[in-house]
Amino acid sequence: MTNQAEKLARRSPTRAELAVWREYIETAEALGRALATGLQSTSGVSSADYAVLLALSEAEDHRLRSSALAVAIGWERSRLSHHLGRMEARGLIRRQRSDSDNRGAAAELTDEGARMFRSASASHLRLVREVFVDALTSEELEDAGKVAASLRAHLEKQRGL
Amino acid sequence: MTNQAEKLARRSPTRAELAVWREYIETAEALGRALATGLQSTSGVSSADYAVLLALSEAEDHRLRSSALAVAIGWERSRLSHHLGRMEARGLIRRQRSDSDNRGAAAELTDEGARMFRSASASHLRLVREVFVDALTSEELEDAGKVAASLRAHLEKQRGL
Repeated sequence: MTNQAEKLARRSPTRAELAVWREYIETAEALGRALATGLQSTSGVSSADYAVLLALSEAEDHRLRSSALAVAIGWERSRLSHHLGRMEARGLIRRQRSDSDNRGAAAELTDEGARMFRSASASHLRLVREVFVDALTSEELEDAGKVAASLRAHLEKQRGL
Repeated sequence: MTNQAEKLARRSPTRAELAVWREYIETAEALGRALATGLQSTSGVSSADYAVLLALSEAEDHRLRSSALAVAIGWERSRLSHHLGRMEARGLIRRQRSDSDNRGAAAELTDEGARMFRSASASHLRLVREVFVDALTSEELEDAGKVAASLRAHLEKQRGL
């Protein structure tokens, strides 16, 4: 084997490793879709709405700069800005633009948004039990937590490099 | 506790269970984003392009009805149709409309699409090793596979009900 071929071989996952990766990522996507569909049909809230409502409801005074909100939910600023516009039109949040800095307008949960979040949360919790908790033994649940923690730690270490 | 309250309590995950769920789903999303960013920067292919190229390259004769393709990659038909239009304009796939049935046009990988897929695959495999395989011990990798299989089996059972 040439050095180049060895390097490629070392870096390429085995068929079995790749099968676990696909099972892992496709299952997570399928669960995410099941939850999104269930949430939309029971409470009229999309998973994008829910992510925003959750982040704001956990923030101090129920408000966040859009820059901080984008980081919290892992979205690009432009996608978030469009989505917040639609949520504002529905009365779920309000935005206050600041001229004094460039971290974007602050988004704040309205009373209607807080009410919608409580209602959606009840559906969300039930769905999490149905699609995730009820599917796993207590040992599997523990394993799922450990695997996620290892993946997260490794990802953060790579980003720090 | 009233019957109603008992029922809600039984159906609501504990704080610890919910923490594992969030860690699980947020980690999978973070890995998906890391892979998408890496793939785009190394090979100029988005993760949406890659999903389509992968499904077609695994199909018989490198072609699939758009209805079957939509199921294979878990997208809505309308989203897929828009995306296929953009990929066709870039010369990565070609579409052949059929008047004889309503399962949608067949999408077929072009030579350019196949070349792009091979190049993107090399990046993809390296990224899967870097963000997933290298992050886990062999025991954790096995656990990840078992957890995914249990979640998938439970989801399919629920859908069958």
